[in-house]
Amino acid sequence: MNRRTLLRAFAVAAAVAAFTPLLFAGDPNGGATGGIQNVPAQTAGAPTLQELGAAVGQTRVALNFVWTLLAAFLVMFMQAGFALAETGFTRAKNAAHTMMMNVMVYGVGILGFWAVGYAFQMGGSGSAMGAALSAPEGMSRLFGPVIHGNQWGLLGGRGFFLTGASYDVSAFAMFLFQMVFMDTALTIPTGAMAERWKLSAFMLYGLVASALIYPVFACWAWGGGWLATLGKYTGLGHGYVDFAGSGVVHLTGGVMALTGVLVLGPRIGKFVKGRAVAIPGHNLPMATLGAIILAFGWFGFNAGSTLAGTDLRIAVVATNTMLASASGAVVAYLYTARKFGAPDLSMAVNGLLAGLVAITASCAFVTAPAAVFIGAVAGFLVVVAALYIENTLKIDDPVGAIAVHGVNGAWGLIALGLFADGTYGQGLNGGPAAGVAGLFYGDGRQLVAQLIGIGTNIIWVGATSFVLFKLLDKTIGMRVAPEVEMAGLDFHEVSAPAYPGDGSTVSTPVILTPRPPKVAEAPALTSRIPLGSEL
Amino acid sequence: MNRRTLLRAFAVAAAVAAFTPLLFAGDPNGGATGGIQNVPAQTAGAPTLQELGAAVGQTRVALNFVWTLLAAFLVMFMQAGFALAETGFTRAKNAAHTMMMNVMVYGVGILGFWAVGYAFQMGGSGSAMGAALSAPEGMSRLFGPVIHGNQWGLLGGRGFFLTGASYDVSAFAMFLFQMVFMDTALTIPTGAMAERWKLSAFMLYGLVASALIYPVFACWAWGGGWLATLGKYTGLGHGYVDFAGSGVVHLTGGVMALTGVLVLGPRIGKFVKGRAVAIPGHNLPMATLGAIILAFGWFGFNAGSTLAGTDLRIAVVATNTMLASASGAVVAYLYTARKFGAPDLSMAVNGLLAGLVAITASCAFVTAPAAVFIGAVAGFLVVVAALYIENTLKIDDPVGAIAVHGVNGAWGLIALGLFADGTYGQGLNGGPAAGVAGLFYGDGRQLVAQLIGIGTNIIWVGATSFVLFKLLDKTIGMRVAPEVEMAGLDFHEVSAPAYPGDGSTVSTPVILTPRPPKVAEAPALTSRIPLGSEL
Amino acid sequence: MNRRTLLRAFAVAAAVAAFTPLLFAGDPNGGATGGIQNVPAQTAGAPTLQELGAAVGQTRVALNFVWTLLAAFLVMFMQAGFALAETGFTRAKNAAHTMMMNVMVYGVGILGFWAVGYAFQMGGSGSAMGAALSAPEGMSRLFGPVIHGNQWGLLGGRGFFLTGASYDVSAFAMFLFQMVFMDTALTIPTGAMAERWKLSAFMLYGLVASALIYPVFACWAWGGGWLATLGKYTGLGHGYVDFAGSGVVHLTGGVMALTGVLVLGPRIGKFVKGRAVAIPGHNLPMATLGAIILAFGWFGFNAGSTLAGTDLRIAVVATNTMLASASGAVVAYLYTARKFGAPDLSMAVNGLLAGLVAITASCAFVTAPAAVFIGAVAGFLVVVAALYIENTLKIDDPVGAIAVHGVNGAWGLIALGLFADGTYGQGLNGGPAAGVAGLFYGDGRQLVAQLIGIGTNIIWVGATSFVLFKLLDKTIGMRVAPEVEMAGLDFHEVSAPAYPGDGSTVSTPVILTPRPPKVAEAPALTSRIPLGSEL
Repeated sequence: MNRRTLLRAFAVAAAVAAFTPLLFAGDPNGGATGGIQNVPAQTAGAPTLQELGAAVGQTRVALNFVWTLLAAFLVMFMQAGFALAETGFTRAKNAAHTMMMNVMVYGVGILGFWAVGYAFQMGGSGSAMGAALSAPEGMSRLFGPVIHGNQWGLLGGRGFFLTGASYDVSAFAMFLFQMVFMDTALTIPTGAMAERWKLSAFMLYGLVASALIYPVFACWAWGGGWLATLGKYTGLGHGYVDFAGSGVVHLTGGVMALTGVLVLGPRIGKFVKGRAVAIPGHNLPMATLGAIILAFGWFGFNAGSTLAGTDLRIAVVATNTMLASASGAVVAYLYTARKFGAPDLSMAVNGLLAGLVAITASCAFVTAPAAVFIGAVAGFLVVVAALYIENTLKIDDPVGAIAVHGVNGAWGLIALGLFADGTYGQGLNGGPAAGVAGLFYGDGRQLVAQLIGIGTNIIWVGATSFVLFKLLDKTIGMRVAPEVEMAGLDFHEVSAPAYPGDGSTVSTPVILTPRPPKVAEAPALTSRIPLGSEL
Repeated sequence: MNRRTLLRAFAVAAAVAAFTPLLFAGDPNGGATGGIQNVPAQTAGAPTLQELGAAVGQTRVALNFVWTLLAAFLVMFMQAGFALAETGFTRAKNAAHTMMMNVMVYGVGILGFWAVGYAFQMGGSGSAMGAALSAPEGMSRLFGPVIHGNQWGLLGGRGFFLTGASYDVSAFAMFLFQMVFMDTALTIPTGAMAERWKLSAFMLYGLVASALIYPVFACWAWGGGWLATLGKYTGLGHGYVDFAGSGVVHLTGGVMALTGVLVLGPRIGKFVKGRAVAIPGHNLPMATLGAIILAFGWFGFNAGSTLAGTDLRIAVVATNTMLASASGAVVAYLYTARKFGAPDLSMAVNGLLAGLVAITASCAFVTAPAAVFIGAVAGFLVVVAALYIENTLKIDDPVGAIAVHGVNGAWGLIALGLFADGTYGQGLNGGPAAGVAGLFYGDGRQLVAQLIGIGTNIIWVGATSFVLFKLLDKTIGMRVAPEVEMAGLDFHEVSAPAYPGDGSTVSTPVILTPRPPKVAEAPALTSRIPLGSEL
Repeated sequence: MNRRTLLRAFAVAAAVAAFTPLLFAGDPNGGATGGIQNVPAQTAGAPTLQELGAAVGQTRVALNFVWTLLAAFLVMFMQAGFALAETGFTRAKNAAHTMMMNVMVYGVGILGFWAVGYAFQMGGSGSAMGAALSAPEGMSRLFGPVIHGNQWGLLGGRGFFLTGASYDVSAFAMFLFQMVFMDTALTIPTGAMAERWKLSAFMLYGLVASALIYPVFACWAWGGGWLATLGKYTGLGHGYVDFAGSGVVHLTGGVMALTGVLVLGPRIGKFVKGRAVAIPGHNLPMATLGAIILAFGWFGFNAGSTLAGTDLRIAVVATNTMLASASGAVVAYLYTARKFGAPDLSMAVNGLLAGLVAITASCAFVTAPAAVFIGAVAGFLVVVAALYIENTLKIDDPVGAIAVHGVNGAWGLIALGLFADGTYGQGLNGGPAAGVAGLFYGDGRQLVAQLIGIGTNIIWVGATSFVLFKLLDKTIGMRVAPEVEMAGLDFHEVSAPAYPGDGSTVSTPVILTPRPPKVAEAPALTSRIPLGSEL
């Protein structure tokens, strides 16, 4: 690094500082939120009523911040779960490549969402500017006022790069929480498209999906958009209700996975003479660990979606989440045990996840028995759907992402339309003063709103992602060359394999040396592949 | 999935909805808890004193909810720790089977506890209905009133399926917290009984233990049962005191592990000519990761057991927990280094866990030096006990669960009876107004209560679990066939091995095809076992 | 265990109890903190203003405890991340040894810090006695009063063994939080010095570094020491400012790693004819999982460093942390893709970590665009530095710890001196009433303070750690014998390998049998090494 590089870096740094308009900052250290920092402690003299009221308000806001941030951290940790599940369910020769996608979807997704996506999603609501978390109360009261900022409900427009008025504690907290949800949606396709997807195409997908595809639908559902206000303006229940994202996150991820694999096509050797051939993953314990991490993070995903620790409904949300995962796993276990003669670990694990996906929309609105039922159906659905997608539709989804997230995302939205029991969500989305109720509790129109949401998701996400993937395919190419796929993507797409075979002795340079063009050297590289890592 | 299936599913769904009596619901969204949702913020006019008091009360309840739920999430994550430790300490050919047990103990356990176990455990106390968490204060004040609801203290009877009056935010939060503790106890035997246990017998064990064996003892200790009230009615200190479950959770798990391995017998090849043969686990880094995850989750386990973030003693609890784990690991390291010529990683890790188990009962009641001492003794005990169980008693416990959880669970209960320093637990369990004190701090009767608790645990859990395992053995059989055990349980008990050998190329169908009966095809399957995964 | 052992243990136990002077305890159950436990709930009559004020104060303190403890738990979990990253980036034949170091650095470090280190670090400030967390407010107000207790600012002297006045809820919470930071610093060298470090020397390093090397610098920076008060007494900005430890933790770890590898020398086979040879790690997915766990725990690391959930700036801290990790990963990906023809997973992961290290000092003080820029520079720096250290300096650092933590720790401290925007840290360290501002925001003197901090760190940590390592080398020896290194440390330094080769069948005793002296039996042991685990 010579002096010129240093000078350039300094210039860019100064520019960054210059272009960050502090003058128009929102409330960057939360001083205004609650208006109080120096609460009278027990040793001080008696405070006034107004001082105390302010202190209590700020404390409640702070508790909501703590809850929302800790929940967001848990959701972020789900990235580890996805990385492990996707890598474990695929082959060792592609493990570094699959891991790379899971690391980079986080990196690229954050930048895309920071630059553009967040503004598109929440910038039409008050949330981008901090109205949301500053209110001392939880979601049910929170999302009502939000929608006023965005009557047309198509796209937000404030909060780009988190500067200006969105340099604000509430906006930052909301960004962090929404970011990790977006990341979850984006990492779903990396499993379905594993073992054959070009990294360059994947990186561009990450940018476009985090900046545009996901945020637009999320705006419609959660950013005060038209789907949320369906109830208010058309009388369809409380509009499209999707508590923690069976639709916004999972159906979106599942639909992108589907269009992706349609454009990519199946892995070499997956279908022989029209018959699906099982390609076992290389490390089921790794995948199982991933699933348990996902179930752990899901508590943040669902219970955190109140955005309020002061909303005690969090206990119902978390418990329902757990119950549905249990029945999902047990049903998938029993069903595969009966069908295949022995229970299938991959499917039991996918049943657990399917139960979680399915309960995500309705976790705050249903009773415990309903949660168990919703999870049980999911555990059955995921096995049936995975077999159908593979054997009948001849679609190759190595990890079952379409069945887990797509099919059960839709089921979760429908389940809310059936089972919401009316005890929660009063006035949600500017809808009726009563709680959200489904068909079995007297409001069939809520189910209609849910179905509109599902259709809209499939149309928007399906169309845009299909166009994106086709475009990438026509330009830089979506799929690696067959030689690369046969040899393993680890030996061409990334610069070192996941499990090198000769690490114990002195080996030829692998990592830190410039390399000649890739495919040409395939034969030489292939001969270097250790036998033990071909699993 | 044809139309008839759909119709049936719909009918069941409607039935689920119909059988969930909302009319008698408790407080499902926490509106009544604290009685206040719309706290005056700083912008409003001065609130009244009564309004403010209510707001402060609700905020404190909410902080306790947030603390209890987050702690419960951490405890749930310990399931990943157990899965990794147990799988890493055993052989690759059984890895999918061991992982399956760890996933399903969670699934089945949740359902058993939800249906019956929780009501048995807490349904005789006010806790099942929410009295506990609704109070703004922590454990020490919380468990006092609870016991009045259950004078006889044998078995609770309200809260089945979390319906009716237990459709209540406090009941749900308490359920979630108690559930993950129960799950921890139940997953302990899966390690000791690994590599030979039939999945079908295991599943039934999961159901019975979560519904009956664990909840009954937990009711006696934590649900206002007779062990808790020993102090109140017989003057034995504060009755049986077990802050976070050295006894309720770990001794219970250790005793079930012991009766289980007595019924199952040792693995083939474990004892040759009356001499124990080491069967190394296949992946020590995996097991070590598991132990660190357990130590991480243990902070929730112990510090969460105040059920109150407003109880600042959480700082002492968490720090003592950490200190005991450290001295446990260091002593086990030094002791094995001296005895074997080099320190043993498995034992260092088990020393860490033994320290955690041992401090669990007393973590809230002892000084920092006492915590270090308790952990150090545990680190020594676990090595001595593991060697004694294996070499002298000729009992085969692949992961050392009996030494870690059983022996040190008992040591932890005794340690409380020795070291409790009287600074905490005033009035606990309706006992004396002074804090809980052990023998070295003047109250030898507390030690007597602890010993009664240990004896009771061994009798109840030992008898019921032994009968259960014997019954299972006589009916469906507890142990897999010798051929299955030799070939690896992954190739018969579950439908796919953990580490398939030929994943990199096109392989024969493994997962998604119906299979003929199991043992018959053993030879063919064995030939398919990859050499590399036989570790 | 015979009767004499029991009697001895009992005597020691009684001594432990006797030497724990409860009489002089601080506030061990938090009763005095906030002075209130029985807050008036909504059902009680109207409370007085004073009662309510006390209740609100205690609630705010409790919220800060909850936040600080949960953040500390997350930081503790980073130990799993380090263990996985270090083990994954090194060879299978040393995996148990690397894991052992990561477990024991936690165990030994806790004991050393508990006995001595904590008192040295915080015992000159009020923090050791609880002044810090008892105040209802966050860091900015908190560190002001702290420094008064320690005018000379060289070394604290109260709080040894957490007894006496430090048997106090605030002292315990502060201990736990500071302990996990110390542990992070100490675990950094275990990666750089892996695959050749003697365990006995490592254990003594752990003790000395946790008791002395780390705490002294931490006292100067965070315990009210002279670096912190530079601003107050010399007018250099707000003194040395290091929000969550780019310097205190990461630069310290990096400098110890550097002196350690200088004393140890490179691994056998690393440099052949003066040219660096890549020695690939055995499991990149393991290392990647480690990095994601680190990124997860880092939220606790950075956002937790407010020590206050009531300080809403936590949202800015957490978001900036995430942004810098993203740009670090993306830049390292793009740079290696361009330089090597394909992106490098190890480097992408190290870029993620480098971004985190670099933002750690300034996360609370900069805008979002600045965070992205700081991370981007880190992602570039880490690759350049790793190549330079390896190829030009001929220093062997298997995991890149010096580049990640040392180089980027220093960059992070400088970055604060450039980009701190003046919106936060008003009055920090007894400095100006305005917020902390860097060169681009008008205060070049802050940059000077940062540079003084960097120089001081290198001198203190560099000198003491170099002396320590040299001393160990001259006495018990720092490095294993060449035969041991060639065969793998798992076969000599610890009593069992990480991945035994013959676990599936009956094997010869490995774990539980006394062993003859080590190196002598090397040939026999070597023949037992399974081929598959030689990676």
